[in-house]
Amino acid sequence: MLKTTIIAVGKLKERAFVELEQEYLKRLRPYAKVKIIELPEVPYHKEKEAGVARRKEAEKIIKRLNPDASITVLDERGELLSTAEFSRRLAPFEATGREIIFIIGSSTGLDKEIKKRANWLLALSPLTFTHNFARVILEEQLYRALTLSAGKIYHK
Amino acid sequence: MLKTTIIAVGKLKERAFVELEQEYLKRLRPYAKVKIIELPEVPYHKEKEAGVARRKEAEKIIKRLNPDASITVLDERGELLSTAEFSRRLAPFEATGREIIFIIGSSTGLDKEIKKRANWLLALSPLTFTHNFARVILEEQLYRALTLSAGKIYHK
Repeated sequence: MLKTTIIAVGKLKERAFVELEQEYLKRLRPYAKVKIIELPEVPYHKEKEAGVARRKEAEKIIKRLNPDASITVLDERGELLSTAEFSRRLAPFEATGREIIFIIGSSTGLDKEIKKRANWLLALSPLTFTHNFARVILEEQLYRALTLSAGKIYHK
Repeated sequence: MLKTTIIAVGKLKERAFVELEQEYLKRLRPYAKVKIIELPEVPYHKEKEAGVARRKEAEKIIKRLNPDASITVLDERGELLSTAEFSRRLAPFEATGREIIFIIGSSTGLDKEIKKRANWLLALSPLTFTHNFARVILEEQLYRALTLSAGKIYHK
């Protein structure tokens, strides 16, 4: 059983995304212990204040990190892989019970301090997705990867 | 104004995906004339009948193709690109008014005859997405790409 925490900066606003998250979390239940930590976005008014906001968000993220966990940051410039490769990357975490944390920034992005702490930078696509999309796609891919490693056919 | 048709095999079943599609189609209205053609999946019972089902689906798709249009097929093994690159690829279609057709298969995939007719194979990600996700992600990316080429900032 995979132990994973998804730390997301910013709320899932639209009902559609909330429904999709609920659906995938429900489907994940037999395969993973998933904890969602949703941190508020730090508001800012001018573009030049974005860096300060990101640093404040980073401090809050860092407080929530289990020092024994492996940290994956979702980043457009990260590694691209197929669902089968993603599944193989999760296998050692399933086997050992070591926690894997996924961090998803808001539209402002993530402070470089967070990326420095990452064991792995993962890209869902070279396309830019909203943080809402990134979050539900990650959840769907976790489900897809874990059912794949459990030997189930899933192509809905 | 981009003229585009999305031909999708299979229905958008869940309400969440229907809502997301409605939202992106609404946002696309100032930038594109989007036509959605949803074709029914041909049912089959045994895995070995999937090929026959795909061929029947292909015949229906082919009937709907405007011979003057450029055809893009969504395919996991297609070209990966950033949102900015996608935007640049759409620019000549925006400029000339030539139609661009996007074809999204069902979970059964697409017949090779459809891929042969494609001017472009486009991958949204090396990850495998459900056809529901692929459809709304394509719509969101069209919106993102067209607002980018219109010089708008969009990072919601």
